[in-house]
Amino acid sequence: MGDPRRVLVVHGPNLNLLGTREPEVYGTATLEEIDAGLVAQGKAAGVEVRCFQSNHEGDLLDRIQEARAWAAGILINPGGLTHTSVALRDALAAVELPVVEVHLSNVHARESFRSHSYVSGIAAGVVTGFGPLSYRLGLTALLDRLAS
Amino acid sequence: MGDPRRVLVVHGPNLNLLGTREPEVYGTATLEEIDAGLVAQGKAAGVEVRCFQSNHEGDLLDRIQEARAWAAGILINPGGLTHTSVALRDALAAVELPVVEVHLSNVHARESFRSHSYVSGIAAGVVTGFGPLSYRLGLTALLDRLAS
Amino acid sequence: MGDPRRVLVVHGPNLNLLGTREPEVYGTATLEEIDAGLVAQGKAAGVEVRCFQSNHEGDLLDRIQEARAWAAGILINPGGLTHTSVALRDALAAVELPVVEVHLSNVHARESFRSHSYVSGIAAGVVTGFGPLSYRLGLTALLDRLAS
Amino acid sequence: MGDPRRVLVVHGPNLNLLGTREPEVYGTATLEEIDAGLVAQGKAAGVEVRCFQSNHEGDLLDRIQEARAWAAGILINPGGLTHTSVALRDALAAVELPVVEVHLSNVHARESFRSHSYVSGIAAGVVTGFGPLSYRLGLTALLDRLAS
Amino acid sequence: MGDPRRVLVVHGPNLNLLGTREPEVYGTATLEEIDAGLVAQGKAAGVEVRCFQSNHEGDLLDRIQEARAWAAGILINPGGLTHTSVALRDALAAVELPVVEVHLSNVHARESFRSHSYVSGIAAGVVTGFGPLSYRLGLTALLDRLAS
Amino acid sequence: MGDPRRVLVVHGPNLNLLGTREPEVYGTATLEEIDAGLVAQGKAAGVEVRCFQSNHEGDLLDRIQEARAWAAGILINPGGLTHTSVALRDALAAVELPVVEVHLSNVHARESFRSHSYVSGIAAGVVTGFGPLSYRLGLTALLDRLAS
Amino acid sequence: MGDPRRVLVVHGPNLNLLGTREPEVYGTATLEEIDAGLVAQGKAAGVEVRCFQSNHEGDLLDRIQEARAWAAGILINPGGLTHTSVALRDALAAVELPVVEVHLSNVHARESFRSHSYVSGIAAGVVTGFGPLSYRLGLTALLDRLAS
Amino acid sequence: MGDPRRVLVVHGPNLNLLGTREPEVYGTATLEEIDAGLVAQGKAAGVEVRCFQSNHEGDLLDRIQEARAWAAGILINPGGLTHTSVALRDALAAVELPVVEVHLSNVHARESFRSHSYVSGIAAGVVTGFGPLSYRLGLTALLDRLAS
Amino acid sequence: MGDPRRVLVVHGPNLNLLGTREPEVYGTATLEEIDAGLVAQGKAAGVEVRCFQSNHEGDLLDRIQEARAWAAGILINPGGLTHTSVALRDALAAVELPVVEVHLSNVHARESFRSHSYVSGIAAGVVTGFGPLSYRLGLTALLDRLAS
Amino acid sequence: MGDPRRVLVVHGPNLNLLGTREPEVYGTATLEEIDAGLVAQGKAAGVEVRCFQSNHEGDLLDRIQEARAWAAGILINPGGLTHTSVALRDALAAVELPVVEVHLSNVHARESFRSHSYVSGIAAGVVTGFGPLSYRLGLTALLDRLAS
Amino acid sequence: MGDPRRVLVVHGPNLNLLGTREPEVYGTATLEEIDAGLVAQGKAAGVEVRCFQSNHEGDLLDRIQEARAWAAGILINPGGLTHTSVALRDALAAVELPVVEVHLSNVHARESFRSHSYVSGIAAGVVTGFGPLSYRLGLTALLDRLAS
Amino acid sequence: MGDPRRVLVVHGPNLNLLGTREPEVYGTATLEEIDAGLVAQGKAAGVEVRCFQSNHEGDLLDRIQEARAWAAGILINPGGLTHTSVALRDALAAVELPVVEVHLSNVHARESFRSHSYVSGIAAGVVTGFGPLSYRLGLTALLDRLAS
Repeated sequence: MGDPRRVLVVHGPNLNLLGTREPEVYGTATLEEIDAGLVAQGKAAGVEVRCFQSNHEGDLLDRIQEARAWAAGILINPGGLTHTSVALRDALAAVELPVVEVHLSNVHARESFRSHSYVSGIAAGVVTGFGPLSYRLGLTALLDRLAS
Repeated sequence: MGDPRRVLVVHGPNLNLLGTREPEVYGTATLEEIDAGLVAQGKAAGVEVRCFQSNHEGDLLDRIQEARAWAAGILINPGGLTHTSVALRDALAAVELPVVEVHLSNVHARESFRSHSYVSGIAAGVVTGFGPLSYRLGLTALLDRLAS
Repeated sequence: MGDPRRVLVVHGPNLNLLGTREPEVYGTATLEEIDAGLVAQGKAAGVEVRCFQSNHEGDLLDRIQEARAWAAGILINPGGLTHTSVALRDALAAVELPVVEVHLSNVHARESFRSHSYVSGIAAGVVTGFGPLSYRLGLTALLDRLAS
Repeated sequence: MGDPRRVLVVHGPNLNLLGTREPEVYGTATLEEIDAGLVAQGKAAGVEVRCFQSNHEGDLLDRIQEARAWAAGILINPGGLTHTSVALRDALAAVELPVVEVHLSNVHARESFRSHSYVSGIAAGVVTGFGPLSYRLGLTALLDRLAS
Repeated sequence: MGDPRRVLVVHGPNLNLLGTREPEVYGTATLEEIDAGLVAQGKAAGVEVRCFQSNHEGDLLDRIQEARAWAAGILINPGGLTHTSVALRDALAAVELPVVEVHLSNVHARESFRSHSYVSGIAAGVVTGFGPLSYRLGLTALLDRLAS
Repeated sequence: MGDPRRVLVVHGPNLNLLGTREPEVYGTATLEEIDAGLVAQGKAAGVEVRCFQSNHEGDLLDRIQEARAWAAGILINPGGLTHTSVALRDALAAVELPVVEVHLSNVHARESFRSHSYVSGIAAGVVTGFGPLSYRLGLTALLDRLAS
Repeated sequence: MGDPRRVLVVHGPNLNLLGTREPEVYGTATLEEIDAGLVAQGKAAGVEVRCFQSNHEGDLLDRIQEARAWAAGILINPGGLTHTSVALRDALAAVELPVVEVHLSNVHARESFRSHSYVSGIAAGVVTGFGPLSYRLGLTALLDRLAS
Repeated sequence: MGDPRRVLVVHGPNLNLLGTREPEVYGTATLEEIDAGLVAQGKAAGVEVRCFQSNHEGDLLDRIQEARAWAAGILINPGGLTHTSVALRDALAAVELPVVEVHLSNVHARESFRSHSYVSGIAAGVVTGFGPLSYRLGLTALLDRLAS
Repeated sequence: MGDPRRVLVVHGPNLNLLGTREPEVYGTATLEEIDAGLVAQGKAAGVEVRCFQSNHEGDLLDRIQEARAWAAGILINPGGLTHTSVALRDALAAVELPVVEVHLSNVHARESFRSHSYVSGIAAGVVTGFGPLSYRLGLTALLDRLAS
Repeated sequence: MGDPRRVLVVHGPNLNLLGTREPEVYGTATLEEIDAGLVAQGKAAGVEVRCFQSNHEGDLLDRIQEARAWAAGILINPGGLTHTSVALRDALAAVELPVVEVHLSNVHARESFRSHSYVSGIAAGVVTGFGPLSYRLGLTALLDRLAS
Repeated sequence: MGDPRRVLVVHGPNLNLLGTREPEVYGTATLEEIDAGLVAQGKAAGVEVRCFQSNHEGDLLDRIQEARAWAAGILINPGGLTHTSVALRDALAAVELPVVEVHLSNVHARESFRSHSYVSGIAAGVVTGFGPLSYRLGLTALLDRLAS
Repeated sequence: MGDPRRVLVVHGPNLNLLGTREPEVYGTATLEEIDAGLVAQGKAAGVEVRCFQSNHEGDLLDRIQEARAWAAGILINPGGLTHTSVALRDALAAVELPVVEVHLSNVHARESFRSHSYVSGIAAGVVTGFGPLSYRLGLTALLDRLAS
């Protein structure tokens, strides 16, 4: 396992659009602002938080694999890959780090295909439905776990 | 809606056993300790937290209905009723208060019948898998929502 | 079988909230008013109507069982238990009285899990979708059956 | 919408056989007698009731479409088409009149394919299981709705 | 029941095309020739055979209903209605005559939706897959039943 | 096959209501206007277009069968029969002409039972979702196929 | 292929009990009598009929495989193996002889698991529901096929 | 674990009606007589048997939880809760005592929804179909297990 | 029915391995010892118990059929055939003797395909999960039934 | 929304092979030729058409997201991603531009997994089955929509 | 476990026909030739290979059970039993030897019921689709495993 | 088709981690070592083996498409894409080269979603469960096919 004072935050496809689209739905916070908040939250806990977003499943897998070398846990919002990517599940399982899955919207109140997640089965826990706060709560849980 | 400075915490069937059973699995925190923590967390935010546990679905429904008169939100761990009680869903929807659903264990990593929740569809959000911390994070989310 | 001039009306969970909530949806009639109407409708037909509501499945079962001793038929709106309670179905079947099932809303136009009823299979008939009128029509059907 | 004092009653396939077949099951009332009763029930409420039966889905669709011009509501027992005809559902939805669906027998206590109705989803309500009384109750509900 | 020496043969939609289309698949026998053969087969057994084809479900239902008055049994190839018409099933059940179902092709070796028949459940028996011979065998079975 | 310069356009149940109902949804074009447009489109390509609408499945089957004698292709909007009629599928397959299926609305964005079509499996192609333009595009595709 | 004047008749498990059990249901004909009838029917057509029954799937497979050497067709009532034996299907397909499947009872009117047959998909045709007559009709169909 | 010489017997909803209803089906033994028999059976083996029935799921859960303190095993007929209560399963699993599940009727020969039990998966074993004898056999099995 | 003082015990495939394999799971009792116990149990009740095991479905069917002539009931552990053999179900139903089904392990706590039994639907009752004791309890139930 | 005179055409995985493979199936037109035709078709309508193909889902998502800034509509053939990519659906929904989905082959006449599209539910309409003409018709529909 | 230098090869139903039937599909190699090749392959590795084929499930079970005494591994092509025999799975699991499953054809490219194997779940691995080479590769894998 | 003496080996997502993770599960062989072994195996057969791994689906598709120009066959372990990528299936089908699918672990003994492969249906054959040996056996099969 990597350094217990470093954590990877992964954002899946389309999350780069956050804040610039449908602010009445997703709020006005951009992904940059969310990332800044998570970095600050980590710093307050003595943990370095590194954030990464990509629309490319392969890039996400690469980054997750690399995290084996340096991170102690992963916070991930897999976006649309949540419901379709076994490869993402396999990568997260392979790095053998605690994983916390978060979602901005309440996936259980949307189309039925969103109620299944390939990631949840191998995650430590899941936070869903609270907008950007989902990330903050998820990071809190991850830091708590790393500290125990 | 009730007083924005009051919140109901509901624990479903069997959660009264917490802390006195399988401590290696569920931790050594008792329900009383969890409740005390939530009350303190609320007090710090200027919000009164009232906790209630019952093994009786009807008692839970009664208490949830009454919360219309005094509470501004509900934090609930429905226990086994999560997967089977439409009446619970209906009661939570009827009081028209924001609902946050929490689970101690990661329900997605257990028997397949635990992956469906009748409550999630009408909840604001869900926190699952972090043990007693699930409650604390769920209350944070509920307080955040009440404050906004 | 009980006295042909006595009928039990059973209201399941959450129906006590009727009239005090979302009047634009459910109308302004309270459960008390509905019950009063049913009692009057029965009296006009020379039949005593006794009404009972509970959020507790067990109380509903107790009351249904007791009805064997005094009632000649049962009018029931099982609420959320409609879709989940085999015990309720068993109790209704056990008392061997004619059962009429009613619903305020059109359950077939709502969530898909509401389209199945454990009660319908052992009921004489079902009335659904007409608001408080569903009760009146259901009682008419039950009285008609008792009179034949 | 048509004249609020006129209502169309539609009987689907095979209902013309009513009363002349299996009287111990379906009773001895013929469709003509049922129709006469509905006409009288309407007249007492100041509403003209016109009845129509056909074994031809197309004729039923034609008649329902025409009702847009003169009727204020439709009472229908779709017979076997209940479970198979999207075209019937579409016609009933297209005329934009309140629809009440009735069945003589309790469809929920028969073959499983009878438990699904394409009509119920767009109906105001459903009455099922009370024999000819189902029609009378259904008409009462329809008249009630037209009067409100 | 009608006259034991009279039988109705019913052909469903598209069977009028027989013999004039894809002779390498369906053979060169026209429906007229098949009907003539069935009439002759009946005559040899002292039974009058009357044949009817229509592409109109309603016409088929009308004719089947009328058969109550004069026929002692029905031989039917429901064509595409086999898999979709509850009304046809209901009409056949309503006339309370023995029904034999036949198919030219082996429906079990074609598209999966052809493997279910609404008619089979209320038929005396089924013959499928032998081309025009299916009709002859089906009539033999029907005559045998009428004779017993 | 029929004359390559003649095409049949078939409209299924309820499409006769087009333009006179819910113009904000279906537009103000009547079926007559759509047909006129298709006839003109055909004439410009040197092809005679004959249009037919019926609420009667049997009439549709009759007309499709007759088209074998004179038409070179069929453009069809099966309406509600799309999802329920094997007989329609069989008739279209039997005439052995190229078939193009069109829908006014996007059937994939409506009730789930509309996502399956018995016709699509034997059609050359499908155009769905563009209102009256769906017909024009479908005819273009059909004419293109006849010309190749 | 074997000699076109020889046919194998195969009876699956439990059919040896025929005639000695529940005569009111299955008739009083024993399997021996049925076999004698089939042998006579064959002889009249100049075809030798050899009959075989076993409760042992393996024996049935052996006998079917051997039939490649001497028979021109197979008439089979697979009994309970109808619904469960892929090996039986494979053996029948492997010998590359025309197969006719028969059943005494109407399998479509019994438990739902009897409505699927592994054999039907590779059979020429099926006769079901006519008691011992099913065999005679099935043999007629098989002989007809061999003669064509 | 509790005292190995004490056992809890739990009867779910509607079992209090035993013996007073449909004696031709359920026998004439009342629940009191069954309980007396079980107490005697236990006494003969040096084990105290305490019996409890309720129509209230919550009361059943309370009693099961309390059994942790004094009992060494649980014999349960969950009645209609068998098929619907995850909370009951959870309570039985939580007390970590051996559980034997019994049913009076053969649940596998009734409605299909009765073939699934939430309890069986965490029970030591199941006895079903033998009327009151099911209880005696179940207790024998439980005592055997406690003795080993 | 056969002699009420004689019973057949049937063991399905692989049960001959009992006691010689995985003793920590299945116990150290061999099938011979179990059979000896059952014979003794029968003798004590004045009933002759004859035991039979085979890995051959056909042999099991033969032996069950023969039991019609001499036995009054059947105790069976169908082993793996439980879940796959309609022929076994048919044989047991055909002999028209009371059948008790037993299993050593709790089939409901294993692979999901083991939760369905073709035998249970036609058995008097089922005992599952108690190891060799399942047999003894099952025989007790069978003897009880024969004595009543 | 972007400039109403600019449109993005997106080709999913494997469509770059068009024209160089199986010309008897897919025709001899290359993707370059199809794109050239679309550009010309757009130019004739005063609309700039930009085309993009990639085998990389991430590249497709990037390009679709960028289109928010400059395009007024999207024409897409998602290839194999049609059936598997929620991320693609999300990206198309996020840009809030009208989307037209096209397919070269008739997906409804191929493997069953091709009959479901994640894109159709959020598309304006779909054109399928006409080879390269599908693109031209789809662009016509998109331009028509932009013009209205 | 048996002697590490001895292996059992099992061929299920119908595989005895190999080489004498449809050589264009299955090749011209007979089962004897395949067995000879496997024996030679084993001998080269110092391992005795014994081969067995039967159409009788019971014989296969017997032989597999006996292999406990002398063999160190099993190579099996279960033929049609692959998809239907829990007893075969149980026998293979009971002998507690490594099992390699092979198939001549690619079962995933055939009827859908062939895509599920009861054996695969308890096998070490599976080789499918390569004709007789599947056996050779499977034996290589088995020998490799025995050598490690 | 490409040069019969050249073969492409494709490794899907996460297989680059091989050998450096969970050696007790996956063995200590790295992907480099496996590739070296395959190259050597090819060379011994006079065939050049080129290996490629990527976590990027798009890169895999590009490489597979290019293989049309130079390779005669493809050996692929699709990793997690096995179960989710129609695009991968389409690419493999498009290049019209023989494909052999391999898996290190026995996918049939893991989560149920791993039992379906989009690739198997268009592969020549599959080898699964033997660790690195799966690759060697798969290459043997591919070389055998190229040589024939």
